[in-house]
Amino acid sequence: MRQGMDRRKPKMQRLDDLENGYRIWQDPEGFCYGVDAVLLAHYATLKDGDRVLDMGTGTGAIPLIMKAIARDAGFKAHFTGIEIQKAAADLAVQSAALNGLENDIHFIQGDIKEAAGIFGAASFSLVTCNPPYMIGSHGLVSAASAKAAARHEIFCTLEDILTAAEKLLEVNGRFAMVHRPFRLAEIITGLTAHHLEPKRMRLVYPFADREPTMVLIEAVRGGRPRMEVGPPLVIYEKDSRYTDELLEIYGINH
Amino acid sequence: MRQGMDRRKPKMQRLDDLENGYRIWQDPEGFCYGVDAVLLAHYATLKDGDRVLDMGTGTGAIPLIMKAIARDAGFKAHFTGIEIQKAAADLAVQSAALNGLENDIHFIQGDIKEAAGIFGAASFSLVTCNPPYMIGSHGLVSAASAKAAARHEIFCTLEDILTAAEKLLEVNGRFAMVHRPFRLAEIITGLTAHHLEPKRMRLVYPFADREPTMVLIEAVRGGRPRMEVGPPLVIYEKDSRYTDELLEIYGINH
Repeated sequence: MRQGMDRRKPKMQRLDDLENGYRIWQDPEGFCYGVDAVLLAHYATLKDGDRVLDMGTGTGAIPLIMKAIARDAGFKAHFTGIEIQKAAADLAVQSAALNGLENDIHFIQGDIKEAAGIFGAASFSLVTCNPPYMIGSHGLVSAASAKAAARHEIFCTLEDILTAAEKLLEVNGRFAMVHRPFRLAEIITGLTAHHLEPKRMRLVYPFADREPTMVLIEAVRGGRPRMEVGPPLVIYEKDSRYTDELLEIYGINH
Repeated sequence: MRQGMDRRKPKMQRLDDLENGYRIWQDPEGFCYGVDAVLLAHYATLKDGDRVLDMGTGTGAIPLIMKAIARDAGFKAHFTGIEIQKAAADLAVQSAALNGLENDIHFIQGDIKEAAGIFGAASFSLVTCNPPYMIGSHGLVSAASAKAAARHEIFCTLEDILTAAEKLLEVNGRFAMVHRPFRLAEIITGLTAHHLEPKRMRLVYPFADREPTMVLIEAVRGGRPRMEVGPPLVIYEKDSRYTDELLEIYGINH
């Protein structure tokens, strides 16, 4: 993304270019999307006609990126993003309007734990989530900040997310998530306990000879047990340039 | 391993050099150990004083390789191997004797499902297993062969193996297994259901840009949920030579 200056809101918000035809309002003092959101948006299996919910959408990066993917593929798809923090949800609404996407992406402020009541059970064909990775307030300096809420399980736990995904997905609907490998056993047992059968997975390694720092996983509600584990997704070459795969995901010519 | 001719048993058996100071009787018409056994033997966390059981040991490759690792580390460790097929178990006994390891490795013919009765509960600090990967007789041509039994769940299922490992391990004992990634969700949910908490995992990729063909996983009986996922273990370079890590595991100078 390219940083831009916004003269109307010089203090706390910033308009960034997603480099896919859309722009996004972010808050450098709050939370800006990272490579994990970009990878998840590209990893989730998007199909023509999908009704997509992004849980904990922040300022809406994942729906904005996936909408561009749908547009380029010629898919009709409707996106919804739910975010508990009002400041982030408000920015997401502004970004949708700025890009003329009010009919394609619907952002609302609300709690994931109440999402099934808000939207109705089985109302989505795809649910995505880039949740807080850290358990509880482990290692937390300030619980008050938006950054802390994006990283720590303050507003919701992994269990809350899986409970909501199970309710919100139609049968055979997909749930795609990015998370940390150190919680993989919890993730897989939690998914299967909620009848979300893990079907696809990739580990994301910063370098080809390092431990993975992220796991991308997609489960199918009511699926049968058999999963495809993909090739290593490596972010950097030895010389710290992006790998060809990352450049392709970011849509940068190389 | 180097192939050798055995003039006494020219038809069905072959004496191979493990290239670690030991030799192993194998049966080319039955089953010979592969790279999965070698990787597992090196992946399992071996500690001084360990009492190790290898379940479904075949002709005993894993205990023979791990004994060489213990010898080189100066560890005292006792190994037991159990194998249901008499012909393979007999060869394993012969290999132990050939290498003068009768006091260090004890091979017996028997059923994993009865192992807790044979050895007693909580009698091992480390259990290893290179089980059949395929579910039931899926894709099976001949159920009668020793090769088929090594590859398909004819004599025991994953559930049988995990049930036995839980019983046979002391608290905090380790269970190390090599398996296929397509069964990873089943493996992780099965391990945790048996109080074997996954603590370490590596995916084994034939090439750096391909899907993994094996998963190495180690669980701790009664462990707390948090796992370390290691760097990609890549077998071949682009030009099909072994990678440096594989050459090191095989103990070949490079």
